[in-house]
Amino acid sequence: MINDTDVEKLFINYKTLEQFKRFKEYGNQELSMIEDLQNNIVENNSESPFYGIYFGDNLIARMSLYKVKAKYDNYFNPPQEYLELWKLEVLPDHRGEGYGKRMVDFAKSFNLPIKTNPRIKSHGFWEKMGFQKAKYEMERDLGENPLIWLPKGVSEKTSDNS
Amino acid sequence: MINDTDVEKLFINYKTLEQFKRFKEYGNQELSMIEDLQNNIVENNSESPFYGIYFGDNLIARMSLYKVKAKYDNYFNPPQEYLELWKLEVLPDHRGEGYGKRMVDFAKSFNLPIKTNPRIKSHGFWEKMGFQKAKYEMERDLGENPLIWLPKGVSEKTSDNS
Repeated sequence: MINDTDVEKLFINYKTLEQFKRFKEYGNQELSMIEDLQNNIVENNSESPFYGIYFGDNLIARMSLYKVKAKYDNYFNPPQEYLELWKLEVLPDHRGEGYGKRMVDFAKSFNLPIKTNPRIKSHGFWEKMGFQKAKYEMERDLGENPLIWLPKGVSEKTSDNS
Repeated sequence: MINDTDVEKLFINYKTLEQFKRFKEYGNQELSMIEDLQNNIVENNSESPFYGIYFGDNLIARMSLYKVKAKYDNYFNPPQEYLELWKLEVLPDHRGEGYGKRMVDFAKSFNLPIKTNPRIKSHGFWEKMGFQKAKYEMERDLGENPLIWLPKGVSEKTSDNS
């Protein structure tokens, strides 16, 4: 039985897209999903890259996880498949209740390295989750502030092994 | 003679890096510049990717511009060299005085396509500057909201010509 507040894969449909509007980091990605649904480019209830936690009927936390292929890996050593995590967000009424940590633990459970690029000042949270700043490389990061999480046996790419 | 409020190339030195601290989008990039300077990895007064406007002695606006090679272009048609613009910011006391527009006009003067990925809600401004939303592609944009500017003769890459 699924616990009421387990992390679930989210599916693309009008109801979910409507719930997404409550999140601050609502942008082109979501608008493009609505368009694709309207134009029958994607089917109703097709898989999205989002995961979330419901509290009753309400989506109260979400994040997106995308598996990046090893050939595009510029962060880890050895170069390997990793997860790009974005738009991790818990609705204001439910902050401080451990949902953010539950989402990140879910992401870690794939046992792949994780990269994220938090848009809001949240370095304290990510540090507690065991993430570290990637060594800044201008050509790669272009002003971004990537954070990475390394599972056992994986290290950060350095200029020596790039 | 340089006008007092012309756009200037900024050089990496402790004074400039100190002035950068007033800007909201201060991050790993700047911290890494300080470290590189302290460890003599970069020379004092070496070129930075930043441009700025001084009002008297004070840096009141800045942005970073980086030329991306044609082989990495995933946005334009035909694929070509373009400018990645980031961290455009005018200090609060000087907003609404046209400095943002002056910076963007400077970037446009290279006559290369421009891509930017604004972190703060500023779509109205970018629209006025003639920028448009790039058609969202998940594998490329990973949750970001890129905006592009097309000089004459350049169009957006579509899935047809990718």
